[in-house]
Amino acid sequence: MPKIIRSKSLAEKTADKLRAQLEGNNVSLGDILCSERELALQYKVSRKTIRSSLSMLVQEGFVVSLDRKGYQVKKPTVGTDKSQLIAYVLGTETRHWEMDAYSHEAWSQVQKSALSMGKNVFALAKEDMSASQICERLLQHQVKGVIVNADDPEIPLELNKAGIPLVMIDTASPKLESVNQDNFNGAYQLTNHLVENGCKNIAWMGRHLELIQGQERLGGYLSALHIAGLKSNKTHIISSVPDKTKLESLKKLSKDSKAIDGLVIMWPQLIEEVVDYLSENKIHLELAVWWGGNPEIKDICKKKFKKQKVPAGVHWNVCDLAESAILKLDERIRNPEKPIGRTMVSMHLTTK
Amino acid sequence: MPKIIRSKSLAEKTADKLRAQLEGNNVSLGDILCSERELALQYKVSRKTIRSSLSMLVQEGFVVSLDRKGYQVKKPTVGTDKSQLIAYVLGTETRHWEMDAYSHEAWSQVQKSALSMGKNVFALAKEDMSASQICERLLQHQVKGVIVNADDPEIPLELNKAGIPLVMIDTASPKLESVNQDNFNGAYQLTNHLVENGCKNIAWMGRHLELIQGQERLGGYLSALHIAGLKSNKTHIISSVPDKTKLESLKKLSKDSKAIDGLVIMWPQLIEEVVDYLSENKIHLELAVWWGGNPEIKDICKKKFKKQKVPAGVHWNVCDLAESAILKLDERIRNPEKPIGRTMVSMHLTTK
Repeated sequence: MPKIIRSKSLAEKTADKLRAQLEGNNVSLGDILCSERELALQYKVSRKTIRSSLSMLVQEGFVVSLDRKGYQVKKPTVGTDKSQLIAYVLGTETRHWEMDAYSHEAWSQVQKSALSMGKNVFALAKEDMSASQICERLLQHQVKGVIVNADDPEIPLELNKAGIPLVMIDTASPKLESVNQDNFNGAYQLTNHLVENGCKNIAWMGRHLELIQGQERLGGYLSALHIAGLKSNKTHIISSVPDKTKLESLKKLSKDSKAIDGLVIMWPQLIEEVVDYLSENKIHLELAVWWGGNPEIKDICKKKFKKQKVPAGVHWNVCDLAESAILKLDERIRNPEKPIGRTMVSMHLTTK
Repeated sequence: MPKIIRSKSLAEKTADKLRAQLEGNNVSLGDILCSERELALQYKVSRKTIRSSLSMLVQEGFVVSLDRKGYQVKKPTVGTDKSQLIAYVLGTETRHWEMDAYSHEAWSQVQKSALSMGKNVFALAKEDMSASQICERLLQHQVKGVIVNADDPEIPLELNKAGIPLVMIDTASPKLESVNQDNFNGAYQLTNHLVENGCKNIAWMGRHLELIQGQERLGGYLSALHIAGLKSNKTHIISSVPDKTKLESLKKLSKDSKAIDGLVIMWPQLIEEVVDYLSENKIHLELAVWWGGNPEIKDICKKKFKKQKVPAGVHWNVCDLAESAILKLDERIRNPEKPIGRTMVSMHLTTK
């Protein structure tokens, strides 16, 4: 008979034992593990081995490393049920507890939705792993399905090959099961809002034109302009920001008062810089902003806008996004033959 | 105690009795009912009353009127289970057995998907009913959910008010739960195909710019042009077809060999006419066609294209659309608080 299973390393066996402990009821979220030295003694392995086992648990999101202070239990261990285990895979090179505000919010909403459906979920960041290493790790855990938040197309490709059901969040491919913000409609609403406020020369600022999200956002703007009977102008489309020369071209455009009277900002990280520039130079420009699903940016900007008018903008509920993703994944696990579809959660326009 | 239930009319009571018979196991799909005269005798009611009862069953899709030849059983009666009853509502003024090829295909796929999930579904066309009359009828049947194929926004509005779970097929509103073809991506793929074939001046022909579908299709075209570095030209966008003057403008454009070298046709009913015109006048224009989900149009055109090259085009699977709609409705019935989302089924590009 061919041998298809390799024997586990000592570090892997030790990680299994640690994991079993963590999944027991004597360990709570936030507990701090004993020191590496003590753990090595207890499990009768070397310091090097225990460190390697702990780093596996870190990768899996069971514990976090507290930077010289030890390891803290991260994953809720109550009610762990392997048959309902799913994973949340982040395509970032940072570790999963170093997520940005949006990814963090998405992750905590995914946890909440998963829990309410009786599922257990753990987070796994790509860091320096290859897509196939991620896949291997997920198979080891016998996950029933995966939610992927990554632009990297290799991760879903590998998961598909391995037959693991998956749902992307905010994906760049129309051929993958996904849940997204409604890029087209968001951009359409923003542009239309400026049109309704009397703007005739509206510029667009955004990026990611190589990805479907960017294409849809540009399309929403161009479509709304055409339908309003307004011309589009190549020089009014400032893509691939943030990029200093591109920012310069906005400054040039906005200085020439005849050039543009409205601006759709599809890249929220730039809002502060743009608003500062406009107010310093006393340039009035009607703004419409893609707040995104990131509550933090919105709040930061609102604070900054105490004296200025807070611009109109669109946002979506991360909570809706996460809940849709979990429901979709559950459906796909139950019915792997289900046709592929992208689901767009609604964008909401707020004008104050 | 306030009286909230009115007593049923004789015609309604008789319809109930007939319905109970139809739901029994002695009646098969395709059976022909006895004559009105015989039925009136059997149920001891007047001809007028039995006609009125039968017309209720026609409305509900249980039987169809065969125009002087009697009534035929339309609805599969096996396994009828009121607790799983859903409806397919068509916003057309024609009756539901007079659907066009696409609606008919969608309906038969909805039936198939529903059946495979143990649900019973009946069709109901708007005809001359008001939205609230439709809603009343659905409530009478105690449907658990409704799939709506209609541009009329009043039908979903009324259903929402009545708290009946619903999923739209191909809806015009981003605020409604729906399953759609991926309009943006379809248009993007078609335009991009022409770009990749060397076209530099691509025209767009479509309609429905007042609805989100049209806006998205226009957006896909404009976005693809911009990203390819090509200019869009207002006179190359021929909307609100079919309209003779608009067709004339295409003819004018295509005669001037420098004006356009490619054409995206987003309104499949026009394909034949356009192709005939081009071939009669020996005008070469690269075409890219929105075949839609309608297998009939595609086949008709393919037959016509025996001597000419069949143009590249995109289509979606009506089967995917129907299955997604049924799954989505099932999910919404189980979880009415589920966030609203539009689901886009994939568009497939075929170049021969």
